Amino acid sequence: MNVIADLCVVPMGVGVSVSRHVAACEKVLREARNADGTPLKLHLHAYGTNIEGDWDAVFAAIKKCHEVVHGMGAPRISTTIKVGTRTDRRQTMEEKVRSVEEKM
Amino acid sequence: MNVIADLCVVPMGVGVSVSRHVAACEKVLREARNADGTPLKLHLHAYGTNIEGDWDAVFAAIKKCHEVVHGMGAPRISTTIKVGTRTDRRQTMEEKVRSVEEKM
Amino acid sequence: MNVIADLCVVPMGVGVSVSRHVAACEKVLREARNADGTPLKLHLHAYGTNIEGDWDAVFAAIKKCHEVVHGMGAPRISTTIKVGTRTDRRQTMEEKVRSVEEKM
Amino acid sequence: MNVIADLCVVPMGVGVSVSRHVAACEKVLREARNADGTPLKLHLHAYGTNIEGDWDAVFAAIKKCHEVVHGMGAPRISTTIKVGTRTDRRQTMEEKVRSVEEKM
Repeated sequence: MNVIADLCVVPMGVGVSVSRHVAACEKVLREARNADGTPLKLHLHAYGTNIEGDWDAVFAAIKKCHEVVHGMGAPRISTTIKVGTRTDRRQTMEEKVRSVEEKM
Repeated sequence: MNVIADLCVVPMGVGVSVSRHVAACEKVLREARNADGTPLKLHLHAYGTNIEGDWDAVFAAIKKCHEVVHGMGAPRISTTIKVGTRTDRRQTMEEKVRSVEEKM
Repeated sequence: MNVIADLCVVPMGVGVSVSRHVAACEKVLREARNADGTPLKLHLHAYGTNIEGDWDAVFAAIKKCHEVVHGMGAPRISTTIKVGTRTDRRQTMEEKVRSVEEKM
Repeated sequence: MNVIADLCVVPMGVGVSVSRHVAACEKVLREARNADGTPLKLHLHAYGTNIEGDWDAVFAAIKKCHEVVHGMGAPRISTTIKVGTRTDRRQTMEEKVRSVEEKM
């Protein structure tokens, strides 16, 4: 099952700046692989990261993000995930954006 | 890794009423089990469901929700998940609510 | 425009425990009033608070939550809001929950 | 109060494709103005739109999105908003992204 997801990890108890922890998550996401060996598609934006890939690969990477951020010393993490799936057709992240831009 | 999560599944392309699909998800969540055989703790509210349990059991149940809702004919699903983990101490859903209420 | 919303306020830079800040938000929400003078309907759960009321009253209260939590010393806040509106019929928070429970 | 927000509007009861409704929201956001007359800063991504601007201007635009999407015939809308504020310093959307990228 292919998903387009959006991930926003908020470490708590580590002070006001969390970019170091978010960068560590980005590295986890970059190293993640789908079942066929391809990398996840990623787009870092100002309030999270778009992720496209297999359900299992995406959620395994998100779990690893929590493990890595806790390992960096964050005692608490509050994460928001959006995840979209569709069975009518396969749609990429680029197509989703283009589909909106064409109608503006 | 124990998590407190919040799940909101929005089926698209099935009309304005989605309570039948949400009820099917609730059944999936009720039947889900942690590694030690205990059920997930659940609380259905007006904009989602609180879930407490093992990371793997919770996310396996969420994946099954997508499979079941697609199986009911929904061609597209947009889900929002919040997930909190902490390493400083174990906290239950009831404790989270009580901890706020005590300070009001 | 009537809304059913869900609010989750995460103060950052104040340590691992945030229940004192969340309780202050709850007080703000309890004191908020719709244009007709009625209070917002509220339900505190383990990952946020359900809110029912006028669009303007609900969002004015959420803004005040940010002001109050910053006033308590939190230098940064990351909030997640879900907001649902419908024009086909008016639906209460209780009806949303009941509508799902009846189909289980 | 300056905010960095993320908006994801999901129209329900209009079929599986919602890009026309999302495009209408984007137009609303583009036309919105802060108190000093400047436009909101926007970045459309694959699961929403980043928005930077005054609290009041951002939330007035989000309310107008709901009005416009209902006006296009959508009987129900479920929206997710993330909103971040900070009092320690002013941070732009570009700085947030750069701050993460520098640490990778």
